[in-house]
Amino acid sequence: MSLRPLHDRVIVKRLEEEKKSAGGILIPDSAAEKPLRAEVIAVGPGKRTDDGKLQEPGVKKGDVVLIGKYSGTEVKIDGQDLVVLREDDIMAVFA
Amino acid sequence: MSLRPLHDRVIVKRLEEEKKSAGGILIPDSAAEKPLRAEVIAVGPGKRTDDGKLQEPGVKKGDVVLIGKYSGTEVKIDGQDLVVLREDDIMAVFA
Amino acid sequence: MSLRPLHDRVIVKRLEEEKKSAGGILIPDSAAEKPLRAEVIAVGPGKRTDDGKLQEPGVKKGDVVLIGKYSGTEVKIDGQDLVVLREDDIMAVFA
Amino acid sequence: MSLRPLHDRVIVKRLEEEKKSAGGILIPDSAAEKPLRAEVIAVGPGKRTDDGKLQEPGVKKGDVVLIGKYSGTEVKIDGQDLVVLREDDIMAVFA
Amino acid sequence: MSLRPLHDRVIVKRLEEEKKSAGGILIPDSAAEKPLRAEVIAVGPGKRTDDGKLQEPGVKKGDVVLIGKYSGTEVKIDGQDLVVLREDDIMAVFA
Amino acid sequence: MSLRPLHDRVIVKRLEEEKKSAGGILIPDSAAEKPLRAEVIAVGPGKRTDDGKLQEPGVKKGDVVLIGKYSGTEVKIDGQDLVVLREDDIMAVFA
Amino acid sequence: MSLRPLHDRVIVKRLEEEKKSAGGILIPDSAAEKPLRAEVIAVGPGKRTDDGKLQEPGVKKGDVVLIGKYSGTEVKIDGQDLVVLREDDIMAVFA
Repeated sequence: MSLRPLHDRVIVKRLEEEKKSAGGILIPDSAAEKPLRAEVIAVGPGKRTDDGKLQEPGVKKGDVVLIGKYSGTEVKIDGQDLVVLREDDIMAVFA
Repeated sequence: MSLRPLHDRVIVKRLEEEKKSAGGILIPDSAAEKPLRAEVIAVGPGKRTDDGKLQEPGVKKGDVVLIGKYSGTEVKIDGQDLVVLREDDIMAVFA
Repeated sequence: MSLRPLHDRVIVKRLEEEKKSAGGILIPDSAAEKPLRAEVIAVGPGKRTDDGKLQEPGVKKGDVVLIGKYSGTEVKIDGQDLVVLREDDIMAVFA
Repeated sequence: MSLRPLHDRVIVKRLEEEKKSAGGILIPDSAAEKPLRAEVIAVGPGKRTDDGKLQEPGVKKGDVVLIGKYSGTEVKIDGQDLVVLREDDIMAVFA
Repeated sequence: MSLRPLHDRVIVKRLEEEKKSAGGILIPDSAAEKPLRAEVIAVGPGKRTDDGKLQEPGVKKGDVVLIGKYSGTEVKIDGQDLVVLREDDIMAVFA
Repeated sequence: MSLRPLHDRVIVKRLEEEKKSAGGILIPDSAAEKPLRAEVIAVGPGKRTDDGKLQEPGVKKGDVVLIGKYSGTEVKIDGQDLVVLREDDIMAVFA
Repeated sequence: MSLRPLHDRVIVKRLEEEKKSAGGILIPDSAAEKPLRAEVIAVGPGKRTDDGKLQEPGVKKGDVVLIGKYSGTEVKIDGQDLVVLREDDIMAVFA
């Protein structure tokens, strides 16, 4: 089963980062509220301009992107924790 | 009797998900505030661009879609619990 | 005497629904805050697009529509309780 | 002396309604916070669309219109209590 | 020395109104919070539409206009108490 | 070293006004919260209209302008106290 | 590894300024909340106008720019403290 995002929405899967400090101690969450890496799972057709033309999205499936920790809406599909967000909430693509 | 949504509104019917944990215990609501599946019952003609052209909706009757738990307005029609929401509040379509 | 709405305004008359439960007990108002049926009494010429063209309204006199309980402004004209609202606040038309 | 409204502004004069109940008892103001009738005294040239064209107003001098009790700004000119409001705040015209 | 307003700004000088009641008693300010007359001192070139064209202002130097008591920004230039406001904050012109 | 403002930003230097009353007594700040004169130090290329055309700024280097006391962002460059603000926050030019 | 910003986003690296007073005493942070210099690391393709055309950014890689202390989102990439912000949040370029 797969999900097709509408408009300029993008579905990503977070790539969890190590939450241990150098010495292996778990850092509590509040110390790690930084933007996160995520992998793009599915991309909508794109936003429409005022006169109805599609604006092609700037990311594609497989891209690793930088998103805010609290961007978008979390959704659990088939046991996977995904995030649905608008393309404009993606800050950058890792190249 | 049927309902014809106006503009970019869509009428959906929630597909209730199991609210039991693996062991069969009922999970209280606050632990389940996640986006939900819903079936599209009726679709409006679509939004108009600034110069008055119709933007064809991205969903159609019968689609199973992902909506936020608190999106739209709940309405009870002929004993059925429906939700009227704008197409833009639909996050994705299950394919 | 009649009323001609301006722009995209619509005047409707609520079709009061039964506020009794199956057993005939009156349900207090807070338990019935649901969208309501209303009959369209008069329709304005429609909204204008950014370049000044009229957008023909999607409802007409006599339509039975679904509106929010608190949508629009209540007005009492000739002893009748009417509601003046914008066409965009009408959710759907009963067909 | 007369007043020429600018843009889409309209100047109206309230047509006070009876504030007595059937039995002739004065109803306190809070029980009468309903939209009111007003007579149009002067009309501005109209709003401009985004590309600078004038949108002709939908009301004219002498029209009796329905306005909200708290719409616009009250102004006292030559002893007359007038209201200056935008045409869009006029809900309907009595025909 | 003179002031040239930018864009759709207008500089006016308030024409103070009598603040005495019929019997010559000074009315405290809170009882007089009404729109005021002001004389136009200088007018900017006008607002630009979305596609960059100038919209000629609807007032000119010398006009006596109706403004809200708290519209715009008060400025003291060469001992004169002036008000800088946007043309859209001017309600009407006395003719 | 110099600063080139982006878009419709303007960099100005405040021309401090005397803060003494006639008798030479220093007036505390709260009594002097009025718009201020400032000299334009640098001007950005201008704002872009919706279709991407530049709107030439209405001020130029050397102009003495009227700005609000709290407009823009204060920045200290090479020991100089400057203010970076948008052209639209400039009220008028002294001529 | 590098980062490609989307749309009108820009990635910068702060150029820390001395936080010592003349006498070498460390000034606490609250006394230094001023705009800061930053070096541009990467620039997105630019914002799109309403009709879908790209607006070329006004900064390029290597530019030293003036940004607000709290503009944008801080991100730590490969041990570097970077800031992702929109081009419009950049106030000026040092020339």
